[in-house]
Amino acid sequence: MNAKSWIPALVKLLGPATVSVSDAVRREHGGDAWFAHAMPDAVVTPRTVSAVQKLMRFCHARKIPVTPRGAGRGYVGGCVPVRGGVSLSLKKLNRIRAINAADGVAVVEPGVITSDLQDAVKKLGLFYPPDPASAKESSIGGNLATNAGGPRCLKYGVTRNYALGLDVVLADGRLVRCGGRTHKNKLGFNLTDLFIGSEGLLGVIVGATLRLIPLPPARAVLVANFARAPQAAAAVNAIISAGFLPAALEVADQFTLAAARAYRPGALPGNALILVEIDGQKNSVAGETRALEKILHRCGALTVQKALTDATAEKLWDLRRDFSYALKATGLTKLNEDVVVPRGRLVDLFNFAGQLQKKFTVSVACFGHAGDGNIHVNLMVPPGHADTANNRRALDALFKQILAWRGSITGEHGVGLAKKPWWQLAADRDLRALHQTIKHALDPHGILNPGKFLA
Amino acid sequence: MNAKSWIPALVKLLGPATVSVSDAVRREHGGDAWFAHAMPDAVVTPRTVSAVQKLMRFCHARKIPVTPRGAGRGYVGGCVPVRGGVSLSLKKLNRIRAINAADGVAVVEPGVITSDLQDAVKKLGLFYPPDPASAKESSIGGNLATNAGGPRCLKYGVTRNYALGLDVVLADGRLVRCGGRTHKNKLGFNLTDLFIGSEGLLGVIVGATLRLIPLPPARAVLVANFARAPQAAAAVNAIISAGFLPAALEVADQFTLAAARAYRPGALPGNALILVEIDGQKNSVAGETRALEKILHRCGALTVQKALTDATAEKLWDLRRDFSYALKATGLTKLNEDVVVPRGRLVDLFNFAGQLQKKFTVSVACFGHAGDGNIHVNLMVPPGHADTANNRRALDALFKQILAWRGSITGEHGVGLAKKPWWQLAADRDLRALHQTIKHALDPHGILNPGKFLA
Repeated sequence: MNAKSWIPALVKLLGPATVSVSDAVRREHGGDAWFAHAMPDAVVTPRTVSAVQKLMRFCHARKIPVTPRGAGRGYVGGCVPVRGGVSLSLKKLNRIRAINAADGVAVVEPGVITSDLQDAVKKLGLFYPPDPASAKESSIGGNLATNAGGPRCLKYGVTRNYALGLDVVLADGRLVRCGGRTHKNKLGFNLTDLFIGSEGLLGVIVGATLRLIPLPPARAVLVANFARAPQAAAAVNAIISAGFLPAALEVADQFTLAAARAYRPGALPGNALILVEIDGQKNSVAGETRALEKILHRCGALTVQKALTDATAEKLWDLRRDFSYALKATGLTKLNEDVVVPRGRLVDLFNFAGQLQKKFTVSVACFGHAGDGNIHVNLMVPPGHADTANNRRALDALFKQILAWRGSITGEHGVGLAKKPWWQLAADRDLRALHQTIKHALDPHGILNPGKFLA
Repeated sequence: MNAKSWIPALVKLLGPATVSVSDAVRREHGGDAWFAHAMPDAVVTPRTVSAVQKLMRFCHARKIPVTPRGAGRGYVGGCVPVRGGVSLSLKKLNRIRAINAADGVAVVEPGVITSDLQDAVKKLGLFYPPDPASAKESSIGGNLATNAGGPRCLKYGVTRNYALGLDVVLADGRLVRCGGRTHKNKLGFNLTDLFIGSEGLLGVIVGATLRLIPLPPARAVLVANFARAPQAAAAVNAIISAGFLPAALEVADQFTLAAARAYRPGALPGNALILVEIDGQKNSVAGETRALEKILHRCGALTVQKALTDATAEKLWDLRRDFSYALKATGLTKLNEDVVVPRGRLVDLFNFAGQLQKKFTVSVACFGHAGDGNIHVNLMVPPGHADTANNRRALDALFKQILAWRGSITGEHGVGLAKKPWWQLAADRDLRALHQTIKHALDPHGILNPGKFLA
């Protein structure tokens, strides 16, 4: 069937306000925050679950590819419609249907922007902890489809730890309600978690019931700088060994700090930085801040800055958030690889990044979530030269080393297109076969987000 | 094929030390802590993963039922081999292979007893939080197969939150390694979580890599008694509204307390009890204990007992642990239903239990995990009369009300045989169909734990 011959029928089915074939709209829905791009034949933006079901029945019957997308802020090209067909945007399904403090739940549509939900529940003394860096732009649906992480995962867990129930439209248009509204549930298989993180390959998430917890009344942030990276690594271990599981425990390396100093002169001394966030009851946080300060000084911190209010804590986080802007301000393109190593390999990873830099004459900036070993290794490459043979070889060396350490090539971004070349290396034959079995069972025609890691 | 004609070939394949057909051994492997029982044709107790693979290949080829079991401490008859065949005991695969403090992981075989792991990691300053009441008897494999919970789930989450990777033998004997060793992992689908809680219907868990966190240096327990249940419920809400997410937040009702007083005279006044456990840094725990004490008194507590050391905390937990023994000492049989309600329905649930008691002239004792709405509603019935029409009607009324409140009929025990009659009520047609699709894809001959909720 010609790619476009089905479009009039689809427009008739869903209405012209829901289906667009304009070049501008299609171009806008062809990529995410990564560099890959492909044009869908049509963009569908439903306002109801029933419209999503109609679309899927239509495409299932005709074997038309459907690539679901949230706010399009992914880092791995996961929502690039590489086989054309329909780009299915969930952005108009964007209502917060309910927030119930007594039950500790929020019921949302997938298009709700993550920080909008965070802000809405905070007003009621509640807390939705998942905090991807993109929280102000990314949507809950995208967060669920990629199982988004963020700095607070260390204490609070990732997006999946807050999903109690999901409404999912399957490839054939059936609507399945998995899980429920309770904070615990052992009914049947855990299908909720099967859809979370499945990157749009198994179903379309059209609704979610999320777990909310009490908002901690207080928080504090400490930022410490060290002359040498091993001191910072030792401080990470000292904090954990003292029985702390901080809300966040972030690190940044020499290249990152140099870029930060260039971007904001005099900002941060030393060659390695740690940021620690704790939260809880007010007096507890104050006492623990003093204890952490002592640990950081004992580990050789050059400076320790601390913040005990929401506003000052955010200012210290701004130093951390600056890193991305500072790296962009170098004029180079950032290839952000969210690798994870077993925590004991943190220093090895930083050292390996240094070697990579020399061997491939490419700058490497590392920062990220030290507490769970999830470090963003950023290859800084000349603009317009993201996809060169040298970069691919450097990434190949990185991912092979990560796997040799029994790490993972992706901790929070997903496989998408960016990591697809290393899927076979990361997953052995039987594991890949099991993925195919599940995929085939749920999407027999292979219409959901085709061309990704289960090509 | 005659049920037993394959046994000689199986003995030849795995050896007589691994396969038993003695009546005593088969009887011993025919049930769990629930009342149902069925005789397997053979009991297989492998000592290697390879033997599990051989067994599954053998049974897959001959369509022989295989019912995996851990330590046999389940509450719902989940490991009762209702279709005969092989009872597969994982108890001899019981080594702790590694505990790595730097990486924060333990690598274990499924037969490891849960409290043995807890104790082993505690010596290294580490913490494995999942704490089913059966921890001293149940095994990690059983905990994973049922996604076991326990009091500490409120703050720390259930078993699945601590499983980083699983080795699973599929129905056809293939060994699949899902997940890995890192605290975060976004590679492919979340198959680890698909197997966790699948009650032996999708695969046999033969190894697990578990997440360990830093052991909190201090803990405290408070026990408060109230004249009336609504006061206790109000105290639960007051604690949560003050921004506390305690490690545990338990309640017990009038019948339970009366039984406890009969069992241990003078133990506990009032008609409702709350137990709160908090943990963290020493000074923080001390301060928060004082704050909680104030809240409990403000909510009308008759008495508040508190414990600030490990030893005294355990003594207060003993009061809570007494409940099961006290209920058993009534001479009645306890039908323990682990229902969950949205937390806002806690008082409604206690009231409903009172009505149930009158309507069906059966005693009802409620206690459990108030913080997450997971209350054990125990029907206390004359011994030998567990499975009567009146009890089934009472359970039917209970489960229908729970579902009407959008609760779940099982929070931590699973469906097994005990909840099987209500599976169709709890899961709608499309959800059941999706379960069947997944089951069929992974176990096309239906040999894994047949006769359960996906009969």
